[in-house]
Amino acid sequence: MEKVTPRTLSGFMELLPAQQIRMNRLLAALRETYELYGFTPLDTPAIEAAEVLLAKGGGETEKQIYRFNKGDSDLALRFDLTVPLAKYVALNRAALSFPFRRYQIGKVWRGERAQRGRFREFYQADIDVIGDGKLDIMNDAEVPAVMARAFTALGLTDFTIRINNRKVLGGYFELLGVRDRTTEVLRTIDKLEKIGVEKVCEILKDECGLDDIQIGGALEFVTLSGSDADKLAFLEERAGENERLAEGVRELRTVIEALPSLGVAKENFAVDLTIARGLDYYTGTVYETAVNSHPEIGSVCSGGRYDNLAEYYTDRQLPGVGMSIGVTRLFYVLTEQGMLNENVLTAPCDAIVLPMTEDTAYAAGVATELRRHGVCTQLYTEQRKFKQKMAYASNLGIPYAVIIGDDEIAAGEVSLKDMSSGEQTRCSAENAARTVLEGLKARSVEKLIKVN
Amino acid sequence: MEKVTPRTLSGFMELLPAQQIRMNRLLAALRETYELYGFTPLDTPAIEAAEVLLAKGGGETEKQIYRFNKGDSDLALRFDLTVPLAKYVALNRAALSFPFRRYQIGKVWRGERAQRGRFREFYQADIDVIGDGKLDIMNDAEVPAVMARAFTALGLTDFTIRINNRKVLGGYFELLGVRDRTTEVLRTIDKLEKIGVEKVCEILKDECGLDDIQIGGALEFVTLSGSDADKLAFLEERAGENERLAEGVRELRTVIEALPSLGVAKENFAVDLTIARGLDYYTGTVYETAVNSHPEIGSVCSGGRYDNLAEYYTDRQLPGVGMSIGVTRLFYVLTEQGMLNENVLTAPCDAIVLPMTEDTAYAAGVATELRRHGVCTQLYTEQRKFKQKMAYASNLGIPYAVIIGDDEIAAGEVSLKDMSSGEQTRCSAENAARTVLEGLKARSVEKLIKVN
Repeated sequence: MEKVTPRTLSGFMELLPAQQIRMNRLLAALRETYELYGFTPLDTPAIEAAEVLLAKGGGETEKQIYRFNKGDSDLALRFDLTVPLAKYVALNRAALSFPFRRYQIGKVWRGERAQRGRFREFYQADIDVIGDGKLDIMNDAEVPAVMARAFTALGLTDFTIRINNRKVLGGYFELLGVRDRTTEVLRTIDKLEKIGVEKVCEILKDECGLDDIQIGGALEFVTLSGSDADKLAFLEERAGENERLAEGVRELRTVIEALPSLGVAKENFAVDLTIARGLDYYTGTVYETAVNSHPEIGSVCSGGRYDNLAEYYTDRQLPGVGMSIGVTRLFYVLTEQGMLNENVLTAPCDAIVLPMTEDTAYAAGVATELRRHGVCTQLYTEQRKFKQKMAYASNLGIPYAVIIGDDEIAAGEVSLKDMSSGEQTRCSAENAARTVLEGLKARSVEKLIKVN
Repeated sequence: MEKVTPRTLSGFMELLPAQQIRMNRLLAALRETYELYGFTPLDTPAIEAAEVLLAKGGGETEKQIYRFNKGDSDLALRFDLTVPLAKYVALNRAALSFPFRRYQIGKVWRGERAQRGRFREFYQADIDVIGDGKLDIMNDAEVPAVMARAFTALGLTDFTIRINNRKVLGGYFELLGVRDRTTEVLRTIDKLEKIGVEKVCEILKDECGLDDIQIGGALEFVTLSGSDADKLAFLEERAGENERLAEGVRELRTVIEALPSLGVAKENFAVDLTIARGLDYYTGTVYETAVNSHPEIGSVCSGGRYDNLAEYYTDRQLPGVGMSIGVTRLFYVLTEQGMLNENVLTAPCDAIVLPMTEDTAYAAGVATELRRHGVCTQLYTEQRKFKQKMAYASNLGIPYAVIIGDDEIAAGEVSLKDMSSGEQTRCSAENAARTVLEGLKARSVEKLIKVN
């Protein structure tokens, strides 16, 4: 038979078992945290009508999208989880309770140019709170609190959620007299980290037409140092002159002041007036998240407040606030940076039962008993030499081997071997289960991420 | 702005929140059971090169597949999880330990004719054990044991995993002297349940050319009644005359005799000589699973033993055994048949914190404390009337409300309201957490499926 060469497409992450188990642990931690904060799961189709998915139309998105026909239908794969959410809420508004708080963890597809660390298929893990008509500003504090908890649960501690407010930006630039060029000025300032202060000034002068005083004001603003309280005080001093700025500062203060009571550590958030995010979409609070020991990673979790989730589908005003983690890229970067904790178990099971006799009925009973106690157990029944069986267990990193020979069967017991210490003891299957579960509990304190 | 009508494609399941939570519970129970038996998770891409996915080529599959071009690439969405597994194992053989036991729960896509209960996007939940060169027959007992445990965990008890062996079928028909027509005869017998005995006899005579003695023998075989032991005895009596039959009976007996020690209840499995399954693929043990109180559902979980998983990709012999659940269809049918337990909680959270004061800092602290104890908690901060807040909690089926007014703040306590009994008590946030967790534990005995 002629063979087809097996291959996986480039830009598509496909992991070996140990890495897959780490990835699943990352996804599970996000899911559990989102649920702890009372977000409800949503699972929209991967395929939507192209017309629905591209309602907003235009731009980079349209070029990257996987679009195709099936019969008469013009279809496309989802390229994010926000557009499907908008469709879902517009479609099911009458059946939903608002605020509608949903999380969705799922794959999205973008036909980007293939390059290292860029994925064409990747997981996003989103949370959003959607209001019907209006939505309280406290939600803008809760959303980053969820993300802070998720990162902490994963073992990442040196992160900072940087928070800004688009109204603060807009209002301040109105004050500077560059209201008509707010968009260009913000877009330029958004590049501050990428291209540096000097280049930004140049563009502000030559392309945006700002005079020296305006540039000075803009730079004073975006390079403002000091504590969050200092920054808020600087803004409040100027807020009397501009209603938009005043509103933005009130919102920003509310969010910043609420975070500690929501359990977020002081070092994990900060006002950052340089953050603007995409210009078309966000209207209030905006977030980016930096890993401080690895700034080169970029923002691992971003989002913000928007006035109108579903304006392409409905006249109903549906304001919302959300954040999104690009999980596949995050996992890739954590691996590349050596930030995954090697001590986390990556075996497919906790214990492997190795029968040394031809009759495997007793061994099967032992496996059943271990599973009844909640020990993830593999029953190994291949006809191999003892050494090969142990090598199999060792290669997979299985922490315990349960050895069943004639002696054990005669005694109605098992031999339990701790694969890391090499220690071997005879006991009942029930006691073996207890020992395994105790041992695993001691190891479960290990977190997925280890920051060096 | 002109609006696009929001819609979800037909044949694509998209659930409202309460149903989604039930569906997630179904998926979680499968995942947990698969892991309890030591299966390792796998997550292959949704998109593969069409050449790779269609290596086997031809047939119904090719017509149903979602296939499209992106740039120069001829791509397709996976239509099952077996072909991607074959590709994965062929590609990564050197890095894997055998037997390789993997589970995969993921969406697959087939552009089937849209009709009620037929889905174009659906979850499959597969387990397979793959050997390198050979694979012990005990695996053929363990795979259905996993599925039996999964169904039991979900609350489904009146199911029967029907087990047969293709070698038994093949050997027996060789004995009858219809070896050259085994394929047609098996295909005809496979229709027994659908078209009845009489029609089957007619086809066996007219189309397969069997004489009356051969038809009699075929019918005696497929209508054999009695216990599993009786059926095995019937087969063993004849097995001396045909080596293939003898091997099949030995395998079938091993599987049937191992199931009780693997924890499968007597009433949950049976020898069924009428099961043949697809003819190209399976070579030994075959399985189908019936829900006895609802035979109209059809097989909810099927599979079998195959000699050669990846023959389109590699010369290496990779035998395997596996079973698959069509989860989306199963969930749809359970819903339609009213088999989902109404007592299972479907709220997005365990407790909702309702601040009655303008300052929400104390309430936020309470929510944080509840979450610290593992209570899934929503903090509700919208400016609404008390009645509206309670209606929100009630509509979502949230079991506990934690009410925070001036009195509670002054006392450093909370008022905890059991939403089903209406009982309200004053206590500390920590004690509220304890009460909620106790109450939930009592309700967690409820299983997802309730067979009437």
